[in-house]
Amino acid sequence: MADDRLQRGLDTLAQIDPGAYEALRGALEGGAPGLADAIVAFGFGDVASRPGLDLKHRELVSVVAAAALGGAQPQLTAHLVYALKLGWTAEELREALIQTAPILGMPRALNGLAALADAVAAVAPEA
Amino acid sequence: MADDRLQRGLDTLAQIDPGAYEALRGALEGGAPGLADAIVAFGFGDVASRPGLDLKHRELVSVVAAAALGGAQPQLTAHLVYALKLGWTAEELREALIQTAPILGMPRALNGLAALADAVAAVAPEA
Amino acid sequence: MADDRLQRGLDTLAQIDPGAYEALRGALEGGAPGLADAIVAFGFGDVASRPGLDLKHRELVSVVAAAALGGAQPQLTAHLVYALKLGWTAEELREALIQTAPILGMPRALNGLAALADAVAAVAPEA
Amino acid sequence: MADDRLQRGLDTLAQIDPGAYEALRGALEGGAPGLADAIVAFGFGDVASRPGLDLKHRELVSVVAAAALGGAQPQLTAHLVYALKLGWTAEELREALIQTAPILGMPRALNGLAALADAVAAVAPEA
Amino acid sequence: MADDRLQRGLDTLAQIDPGAYEALRGALEGGAPGLADAIVAFGFGDVASRPGLDLKHRELVSVVAAAALGGAQPQLTAHLVYALKLGWTAEELREALIQTAPILGMPRALNGLAALADAVAAVAPEA
Amino acid sequence: MADDRLQRGLDTLAQIDPGAYEALRGALEGGAPGLADAIVAFGFGDVASRPGLDLKHRELVSVVAAAALGGAQPQLTAHLVYALKLGWTAEELREALIQTAPILGMPRALNGLAALADAVAAVAPEA
Repeated sequence: MADDRLQRGLDTLAQIDPGAYEALRGALEGGAPGLADAIVAFGFGDVASRPGLDLKHRELVSVVAAAALGGAQPQLTAHLVYALKLGWTAEELREALIQTAPILGMPRALNGLAALADAVAAVAPEA
Repeated sequence: MADDRLQRGLDTLAQIDPGAYEALRGALEGGAPGLADAIVAFGFGDVASRPGLDLKHRELVSVVAAAALGGAQPQLTAHLVYALKLGWTAEELREALIQTAPILGMPRALNGLAALADAVAAVAPEA
Repeated sequence: MADDRLQRGLDTLAQIDPGAYEALRGALEGGAPGLADAIVAFGFGDVASRPGLDLKHRELVSVVAAAALGGAQPQLTAHLVYALKLGWTAEELREALIQTAPILGMPRALNGLAALADAVAAVAPEA
Repeated sequence: MADDRLQRGLDTLAQIDPGAYEALRGALEGGAPGLADAIVAFGFGDVASRPGLDLKHRELVSVVAAAALGGAQPQLTAHLVYALKLGWTAEELREALIQTAPILGMPRALNGLAALADAVAAVAPEA
Repeated sequence: MADDRLQRGLDTLAQIDPGAYEALRGALEGGAPGLADAIVAFGFGDVASRPGLDLKHRELVSVVAAAALGGAQPQLTAHLVYALKLGWTAEELREALIQTAPILGMPRALNGLAALADAVAAVAPEA
Repeated sequence: MADDRLQRGLDTLAQIDPGAYEALRGALEGGAPGLADAIVAFGFGDVASRPGLDLKHRELVSVVAAAALGGAQPQLTAHLVYALKLGWTAEELREALIQTAPILGMPRALNGLAALADAVAAVAPEA
């Protein structure tokens, strides 16, 4: 019998990127069994699928949170890729990252712009 | 002769809240002369008035950045008030704060929800 | 039909403190419906109930993580209460907090000791 | 006349890894004379040798603190190596890092797992 | 037989504020025996008494570090008091805190200015 | 008609390093038009050119702030280069970074020392 939250997480993640679950599981299952499922069940099943804010705006929140955290360039790049796939333009994401500068300072914004360049390059071949 | 960026900042801030500049200047001018103007010139003149992302979305970014920073409850509450004035609903902001939990952990999200309750209470009397 | 993750989380949380779920739900359900369940399902169902490290040691990890985060005194105090209920002594927790000083600096350790005093006071009436 | 705290620190560090002091001094003495001794005197002489919590548990605390800090992958890897040498298994450390996710978010936990893979590889040749 | 590092720390701390050790010991000795001595031995004996940068400039560094950390208002206020006693003016410290804004963002700088007002008030009665 | 804040920022930055603006604009203008000017107008026009603390001491503050932030090695190295050009010696900067250890922990100080080695190497060829 399936776990409802995991299924809801898988459905939500598939709306962003059909190959994301395979990639996540491939990266984590060897080192940390079950962690990929926990991330999907919580991050996308419990949280991102909640009503009250659409998935596109939620991904903008994730981008800003990952940029703010610092020391999380791979995760920030991954969320920027998700955000591009959900329809945010590179210009909108650039402006969102610049908008963090008055609150978080320049280094976080500049590191965010570097990750955005990586994300745009990663998505571009599909275009 | 006026400084263009300060004027642009004052115009932008007035779109959010006509009384915000007076409040900021009242709070800061005694202790740190000129700092209120620098905050307005940079935060609202250089940054928030840039094209490419509208003011309402920029304020959502500011809310998430302030929630992520931690130890900034007064500034987070102020940005939540600005966000409510720009048309975000309390429910949307609540969901944005919850959306930070997978990346920043529960404490940042929970502190954000506490600030949201304060911001809603501060704005409510105007309704 | 119950969600397995949530049920596992409720069972795990009840081992720490039989009244914790009621308290969490009472604090959060009004402002953020469903969030208490998501916290329990993820934090205690997906994560704390994993094999490979016992619950008592997991709670030590949570204490150190909350102390390290900063700006999270209520959550740190709550985890210190959980840790005391799981059998850590106040002296062991004090030493764990002091042990963070070389890596995180003195302020995080000192704020942790202040939270420990609150946690000990909160648990003491039961003794 | 020897400084008691430095001597106590050297003795404590030698219990973890007989070669650690030489490595630390080799890395730091050229650029920052005396810093290696200060780190040992404080971190291992003043702090880690305190009674009330054994060395093995103290090293678990150091691992979680270094993972929580972020932007400290080399120091986190070094503490994971120490933890392995003190008898924690790779599985226990993996679970400790995963346990940080509800409080610190996923990126800190995932970066911790990457450092753990490095630490296990560094220790393995000795096995 | 005295520990050289502790004695050097006590001498250094006494140059800043003759009553500081008593205050520190009074605050910490009950809850964490020996911690005040470890803080003095490391912070003032190992570190602040090093050659190459004078004590007044070292205290400026401590102020900026405590402001940057966030969630450390009591420690920041204490270091601002030390800095005032070592001869920095309130205006110089105000400017140092404002100088952090481009790198750390506005909230850290503004919280620093609030702590400075507390520190000035604490020192003023002596004037 | 020139913007006074930007012009003041350009003048201030030129005192530190005549080539810095060209380098900043070259790095940022392609990806984020106007951002280099905003950084100069705010960081050097609004903030660093304020009276009350000289430019050399302001740059020491920037170094400590960037070291404290973490995850900002390129920006920290850039500020260390500026500090060297303004007359701080490598030894003074080393001691400033070590002075952060009691408040921020060892990893931030050690990462700062690594950046200092890079900055010294970058400036040396000019000597």
